[in-house]
Amino acid sequence: MCQRHGLELEIIECAWGSGAPTEQFAQRLAQDSQHRIKALLVTHNETATGVRSDIEAVRKAMDESEHPAMLYVDCVSSLASMDFRMDEWGVDLAVSGSQKGFMIATGMAIVAASQKALEATQQAKLYRTFFDFEEMRNATRSGGYPYTPPVQLINGLRASVDMLLEEGLESVFRRHFRIAEGVREAIKTWGLPLCAVSPELYSDTVSAIYVPDGLDSDTLVNHAYNAYGVSYGIGLGEMAGKAFRIGHLGAMTEVIALAGIATIEMAMKDLDYPVQLGAGVSAAQEYYRNSRDD
Amino acid sequence: MCQRHGLELEIIECAWGSGAPTEQFAQRLAQDSQHRIKALLVTHNETATGVRSDIEAVRKAMDESEHPAMLYVDCVSSLASMDFRMDEWGVDLAVSGSQKGFMIATGMAIVAASQKALEATQQAKLYRTFFDFEEMRNATRSGGYPYTPPVQLINGLRASVDMLLEEGLESVFRRHFRIAEGVREAIKTWGLPLCAVSPELYSDTVSAIYVPDGLDSDTLVNHAYNAYGVSYGIGLGEMAGKAFRIGHLGAMTEVIALAGIATIEMAMKDLDYPVQLGAGVSAAQEYYRNSRDD
Amino acid sequence: MCQRHGLELEIIECAWGSGAPTEQFAQRLAQDSQHRIKALLVTHNETATGVRSDIEAVRKAMDESEHPAMLYVDCVSSLASMDFRMDEWGVDLAVSGSQKGFMIATGMAIVAASQKALEATQQAKLYRTFFDFEEMRNATRSGGYPYTPPVQLINGLRASVDMLLEEGLESVFRRHFRIAEGVREAIKTWGLPLCAVSPELYSDTVSAIYVPDGLDSDTLVNHAYNAYGVSYGIGLGEMAGKAFRIGHLGAMTEVIALAGIATIEMAMKDLDYPVQLGAGVSAAQEYYRNSRDD
Amino acid sequence: MCQRHGLELEIIECAWGSGAPTEQFAQRLAQDSQHRIKALLVTHNETATGVRSDIEAVRKAMDESEHPAMLYVDCVSSLASMDFRMDEWGVDLAVSGSQKGFMIATGMAIVAASQKALEATQQAKLYRTFFDFEEMRNATRSGGYPYTPPVQLINGLRASVDMLLEEGLESVFRRHFRIAEGVREAIKTWGLPLCAVSPELYSDTVSAIYVPDGLDSDTLVNHAYNAYGVSYGIGLGEMAGKAFRIGHLGAMTEVIALAGIATIEMAMKDLDYPVQLGAGVSAAQEYYRNSRDD
Repeated sequence: MCQRHGLELEIIECAWGSGAPTEQFAQRLAQDSQHRIKALLVTHNETATGVRSDIEAVRKAMDESEHPAMLYVDCVSSLASMDFRMDEWGVDLAVSGSQKGFMIATGMAIVAASQKALEATQQAKLYRTFFDFEEMRNATRSGGYPYTPPVQLINGLRASVDMLLEEGLESVFRRHFRIAEGVREAIKTWGLPLCAVSPELYSDTVSAIYVPDGLDSDTLVNHAYNAYGVSYGIGLGEMAGKAFRIGHLGAMTEVIALAGIATIEMAMKDLDYPVQLGAGVSAAQEYYRNSRDD
Repeated sequence: MCQRHGLELEIIECAWGSGAPTEQFAQRLAQDSQHRIKALLVTHNETATGVRSDIEAVRKAMDESEHPAMLYVDCVSSLASMDFRMDEWGVDLAVSGSQKGFMIATGMAIVAASQKALEATQQAKLYRTFFDFEEMRNATRSGGYPYTPPVQLINGLRASVDMLLEEGLESVFRRHFRIAEGVREAIKTWGLPLCAVSPELYSDTVSAIYVPDGLDSDTLVNHAYNAYGVSYGIGLGEMAGKAFRIGHLGAMTEVIALAGIATIEMAMKDLDYPVQLGAGVSAAQEYYRNSRDD
Repeated sequence: MCQRHGLELEIIECAWGSGAPTEQFAQRLAQDSQHRIKALLVTHNETATGVRSDIEAVRKAMDESEHPAMLYVDCVSSLASMDFRMDEWGVDLAVSGSQKGFMIATGMAIVAASQKALEATQQAKLYRTFFDFEEMRNATRSGGYPYTPPVQLINGLRASVDMLLEEGLESVFRRHFRIAEGVREAIKTWGLPLCAVSPELYSDTVSAIYVPDGLDSDTLVNHAYNAYGVSYGIGLGEMAGKAFRIGHLGAMTEVIALAGIATIEMAMKDLDYPVQLGAGVSAAQEYYRNSRDD
Repeated sequence: MCQRHGLELEIIECAWGSGAPTEQFAQRLAQDSQHRIKALLVTHNETATGVRSDIEAVRKAMDESEHPAMLYVDCVSSLASMDFRMDEWGVDLAVSGSQKGFMIATGMAIVAASQKALEATQQAKLYRTFFDFEEMRNATRSGGYPYTPPVQLINGLRASVDMLLEEGLESVFRRHFRIAEGVREAIKTWGLPLCAVSPELYSDTVSAIYVPDGLDSDTLVNHAYNAYGVSYGIGLGEMAGKAFRIGHLGAMTEVIALAGIATIEMAMKDLDYPVQLGAGVSAAQEYYRNSRDD
C-alpha cells in the first residue's frame, strides 16, 4: 500500500509469467467490506512477459464478490490485435495507444470509459486537466476539442480503423494467432522456455523467451541489432538479462515473422547458443503451411 | 535483320543464360568494313535470365576491331545496385529507370550520353520529340525543362542518390553481392539450376531459377502470391513456365532476403517440389553469418 | 503538309486565341473525297492561350461531311476540371496526363480509345512499342501489365478519382468555373486583355493575359517568382514576352486564387504596371461572395 | 491562491491584452521574504490575446529582487517563430510543442530545463511519471528512451530543425515579423482594434482582433469556415464572442497571409461589417512590396 497525492495504491504481486490473479482479487475485495477500493487495474496483455490475462474472469470474480469497484484495463498491446470486449466483459475504463495494434505514429493515448466511469468523474476529487472526460465530452459534442487536437493522428486512426474493419476483426485476430503460433513453434525447437507459464496465457502480440542460464539476453538483443539491423525487445524488470522478446503485433504477416525468426537464429548461433540454423524457421514454415485458411 | 522506320535492326541471337557474345560482336563488326553499323546495344543485367554481361570486354572487342560504332547499354536493373562505369568502360549511351536501383516510383527514364553520342544527334535523322538531347540541354542550361518536368520523381531521385552516397557505392554493391550469394546458397540446396550458365555471369539483383521438369513455374509463382502474398517473377520468353525469378535489388537487406527464401520454400513444398523446409534458409543464414563485414 | 516516318501531318493554322476552326475542318474534309485523312487532332483546352474549344461542334462538322476520319482530342489540361464527354461527343482517342486535373505526380500518360480506334490498330502500320493497345488489353485482361506498371501513380489515380467522385463532377466543374470567373473579374480591373478572343472560349483552368505594349511578360513572371515565390506561366510561342498565364486547375480553391491574384498585383505594381493594388482582389472577392452556392 | 495536491498556486491577474506584469511580479517576490515561492510561470506569447511579453524584463526584475525563484516560460506559440533565448534570458524551464513553430504533427511536448531546474528535481516531492527528467536523462544517455519514444515525431522534429537552420533563425524571425506587420496593416484599415494594447506587445505569430460592438465574433469565424473553408481562431475566455484571431506562425508566407486577409474580408462583408473589400489586402500588399529584403 502506498500513498500518492491522497491516492492510495495497493499492488497485488504475482509471479512473472502468470496471469492476473483472479482469486487474490476476489479475496481482497471480499475483505473490503467498507468498499474503500474504488477500482481494480489489470493489464490485458502484459508486454514484458507476453502474458494475456482473462479479463472476463476478473469481472466475474468482481461480480461474485458484489463489490462496486470499477474495472480498469490496460489494453495497450492487445487492442486491435487480440479480442477485447469492453462492454461484454464489463470493463469501466480501457486505455490504449496509437502505436501498437492501430499501427500509426506514437503520440496519442486512446481511452474509453463506461457510463459508470463517466458518472464517477462527477464525484472524483483528483485534479484533472488533459484527461477530464467532462471537458472532452462538452467540446466534442459540438464538433470541437477542448485543446489542440492531434489532427494528423486522428486522421491516421480513421485510416487504420478502416483497414482493420476491411480485413474484419475476426480475420485480424486469427492472423495474429497464426503468426504467434508459428513463432512459438520456432521457439519450441530452440528448447527455450516462454515466460508465459501456460498456453492459455500466451500472448498473440509478443513472446518473451528465457535464454539459457549463463547467457545474457541483452548481449543477444544488441548483437541482433548491430549485426542484422533488427530490434528485438530486451528483458524488463525481473527478466532483465534473462529474456528477450519478439514482437508480432500490428501490420504483421507470417512472411515478416519468418524473417524475424531467421534473424534471431543467426544471432543466437553467432553467440554459441545451442540452436541449429533453420530449425526454428522450418518449424514455423511447417505450421504456416498447414494452418492456411484458404 | 529487320527494317523499322528506315532503321535497320540486326539481332545477334545467343543462348538464354549466356552473357553478351563478345566474340560474335567482334566478328560482325569486322565484317562491316563500310561502317554501316551505327551502334551496338547490350544489356548489362538481363532481368529475364539473371545474367550480368561484361560490358568492359565488349568495349575492348569493339576497340580492337577499330570500328567507330557506339556502345549503348541497357543498365535498367543494374545501375545503383551493381558496379557500372560509363566513362571507364566507354559507354556512349546508358538507359535506366527510377524504379529499380534508385528505389523510387516508376515513371521516369534516366538516360546518359557520352560526348560522342551528343554530337551524333546533330546528324541523326530519326524524328525525336520527348528525348531530344539538344532540346533538353538548351532548356536545362537555363534552369528550365523543355516539357512538364516530373518534379516529384526528380526530388525522389535526389533523395535516393543521397541515400546511396551516404551508404557508399562500394558498400551498396557489396551488400547486393552478399544478399545475392545467400540467395544462391539457398537455391543450391534446392537442387535447382540457375539460368545463368556460369558464376561470372551471376546477377546480384535477380536470380532466375529453373523448376524441375514436369512442373510449371507459373503455378508456383501464382501460389506464392495467393497463399503468402509475396510476388516472385515469372519465367519470360523461352523460359515461360520453366523458371521463376527472385528479385533482390534496391532497398534490400539480408533479412528481407531470408523472408523471400523461406516463403518460396513453403510454396514449393505445398506443390510437392522435392525440397526440405528450412534447407535453403539455413544455407543462406550460414552464408550471411559468415560473410558479415563487421 | 509535312512527312514524318511515312506519316503525313497537315496543320491547319488559326489565330492565337481563337478556338478550333470548325469551318475550316469541315472544308478540308470535304475536299478529301478519297478519305486519305485518317484523323483530326484537336486540343480541347489550349494551355498556351487559355482557350477551350467546342469539341462537340467539331464532331458535328465531321459527321455532316460524312467523312470517316477519327477525332483525336488532347484533353491534358481540361480532363477532370472541365466537362469532357468522350462518348457523347464522339471522340475516338483522348489523351491526358496525371499531373493536371488528377492532381498527382507527373509521370503517367492517360489514353482512352473508342471501339473504332481500337479496331483501327489492327490495320495500323506505324511501329508501336509502349502504347500498343492490343498488348495492353491482352495483359490487363488477366490482371497483368505488359511492362513495368507505374503502381504508385495508378494508386494515386485511384485516390484522386475517389476524391473527384466524392465532390461530384458537376461540383468540380462548377468550382473551376467560379474560380476562373473570379480571376477574370480581377483581370478586367487591370485593363489587360485575355488572349482568348471571346467569352465562350474562356478556359476554366488557365487564363493567358497580354501585358501592356512595351512591357516584357517574362520579366513579370521572373519577378513574381523571385520576389514572392509564386510561379506564373510565361507566354509561349507567338506570345513569348507578350503574355503571362495564371493556372487555376486541379486542387484549387477561391482562397488560393485570391492569393495568386494579390501576388501578381504586387509584382505588376513593382514593375510600374498601371494597376491599383487590391483592385483585382476586390473584384474577385465581390464575385466569389456573390456566387456562393450555399 | 489555491491548493492543488499540496501545490500552492497563486495567479497574478492582469488585464487581457496587457503583457506580463513585471512590476507586480517584483512586488510579490519582494513580499516573499521567506522564499516560499518556488517558481514564476510566464507565457512568452499569449495565444488568446496575441501578446508577446518581455521575458528578459521579468528575469531582470527577479534578479533585482534577489529572490531565488525559478523562471518557467510557456513558449508554445513563439518558439521557432519569434526570438526566444533561454540561456541569455535566464529561463529555467521552457515548454513548447511540436505543432506550432516546428510545423509538425501534434503529439509531442518539448521541454527544456536549466541546470538549476534539473538540480531542483532532486528535492522535488511532486509525484512524476512521464516527465521525470532524471529518468529521461538516464535512458537517453545510453541512446535509449524511458518509455515508447515518439519516433516519427522525433524524426519530424529533426527535419523541421534542419529547415529552420537552413533558412536561418534571423530570417525566420524576420519573415514572421513581416507577415505579421502586413496583417496588422490590414487590420488597421478595417478600423478594428487589436487586443494587444501597445505595439511592443504585438505578437508575430497570432493577431487577436476585436469585432465592432453588437457583432458576435463566433458568427464571423463560423461563417468564414462554412462559406470559404478557412479556419480563424475564436475569441477565448473573456474575449469569447468579442474577438477573432488570425494565426500566422510556422510554415507561413506573405502570399498565404494575403489569402487569409482576403478571406476574412469577404466574410466580414457578408455579415455587414463596415469594411471595404480589398482595403485590408491592398494595405498588406503595399507593406509587403515595400518591406522586401532583396
